[in-house]
Amino acid sequence: MDGQLSPGALRQRVRSGEHRGNTSGFAAGYVQCNIVILPADWANDFLRFCQLNPKPCPLVATSNAPGDPAIPPLGDIDIRSDVPSYRVFREGEVTEELPDITRLWRDDLVTFALGCSFSFEEALLADGLEVRNVSEGVNVPMYRTDIDCTAAGPFAGKMVVSMRPFLAADAIRAVQICTRFPSVHGAPVHLGEPGLIGINNLARPDYGDAVTIAEDELPVFWACGVTPQVALEAARPPFAITHSPGCMLVTDLRNSQLAVL
Amino acid sequence: MDGQLSPGALRQRVRSGEHRGNTSGFAAGYVQCNIVILPADWANDFLRFCQLNPKPCPLVATSNAPGDPAIPPLGDIDIRSDVPSYRVFREGEVTEELPDITRLWRDDLVTFALGCSFSFEEALLADGLEVRNVSEGVNVPMYRTDIDCTAAGPFAGKMVVSMRPFLAADAIRAVQICTRFPSVHGAPVHLGEPGLIGINNLARPDYGDAVTIAEDELPVFWACGVTPQVALEAARPPFAITHSPGCMLVTDLRNSQLAVL
Repeated sequence: MDGQLSPGALRQRVRSGEHRGNTSGFAAGYVQCNIVILPADWANDFLRFCQLNPKPCPLVATSNAPGDPAIPPLGDIDIRSDVPSYRVFREGEVTEELPDITRLWRDDLVTFALGCSFSFEEALLADGLEVRNVSEGVNVPMYRTDIDCTAAGPFAGKMVVSMRPFLAADAIRAVQICTRFPSVHGAPVHLGEPGLIGINNLARPDYGDAVTIAEDELPVFWACGVTPQVALEAARPPFAITHSPGCMLVTDLRNSQLAVL
Repeated sequence: MDGQLSPGALRQRVRSGEHRGNTSGFAAGYVQCNIVILPADWANDFLRFCQLNPKPCPLVATSNAPGDPAIPPLGDIDIRSDVPSYRVFREGEVTEELPDITRLWRDDLVTFALGCSFSFEEALLADGLEVRNVSEGVNVPMYRTDIDCTAAGPFAGKMVVSMRPFLAADAIRAVQICTRFPSVHGAPVHLGEPGLIGINNLARPDYGDAVTIAEDELPVFWACGVTPQVALEAARPPFAITHSPGCMLVTDLRNSQLAVL
């Protein structure tokens, strides 16, 4: 991986097929986004879903108009080719995984770019905190909770959370740091007893990998960008496209630009 | 009690002896301060102690010069008469409790005004959080911890903390709110398992009163203004004066003016 590559140079490599797969650790310091692409007649409900559930679905930018593959606020982007891997959904089910969606593009498609935890993990690491999934070199553990999202039309479902363990003083510091970044999930939604949000076994995440939790540590839970995918599966639109997990849109925005303070 | 009284009017009543005792709930919206008065040759070490331990000892203001009973940044104050009750310490022991210290005043005395949790409790309540000691009408429970303060000359000791129980989501919100108020103890120093900071029994506080903690709540711990009194008892200066617990200096500063954001 190449943390020094500029976001534009990395996107060129993605666009040309030279870079495939995970974007974690690439273009260090720049915002990476979760992507959801929907037909225009589904877009308004999804937009409302994001607005009603800003912690799991923090909207960073959208395309300008149906059919337009550009997202100017995020850089010189062609959303049809600038994500390393895409998932195509039909009726809420993944039917294909593709490195390019140019041949599937339609003039009614609207793109949503949502914040991702890579940005706040960078801020936590920069402050000297240990982020367990980073130090153990695994995907962050994610869990389905019993917390209901606020429904918008057909989009609904339970919130998915990611978990990172911290000593209490570091958990307090993590709340402070992440509060500065509302557009990348913001402050945690829960800490301590997992059962209170419907999680029964931390050792068995629903997505990602389990991490070590020391006896003197608290599990700290953040709203997670998998939540919109769960809502998408529930809504069952006839056609939708997302990024593949870990294969994000790398943007020209700096993480520090997302800080509200 | 009279929350509507202006701070200046309340201080007049204190000065004249018309108001005695607790100041909690009076002059709502205004900053109340812990007071420590020391001979000038002890003042520098105490100032350093405050600077090294800003969470338990958040310095809001000091007097201008030894012997000067005014504290201009806090209002038209005569520190010899404007606190409802004083404790006089000799060699680290309380020897008297007095409503006025004019007859004890010396031309070498320096006054320190430290932030107090009343200010952040008001901010928590204003946000709709329940502050248990307020709703149960008791003094906040306070505990000695095993957390060492950073020593400055003879001033040293363990940190004392106050505790308020919250649901996890409210605890996270409380961290955000209190972070805005570093000069009144700021963010909590610990939450969750009390044993990790040397507290063995929440039902038996070292100072104040126990409060109810529901099963789904976390105890949240803030650095407490009793800490400097403990350091004072350890340092054993020949002469010192503080406010009596709960009988604070009411200032003209608004709580909102202490917010850094």
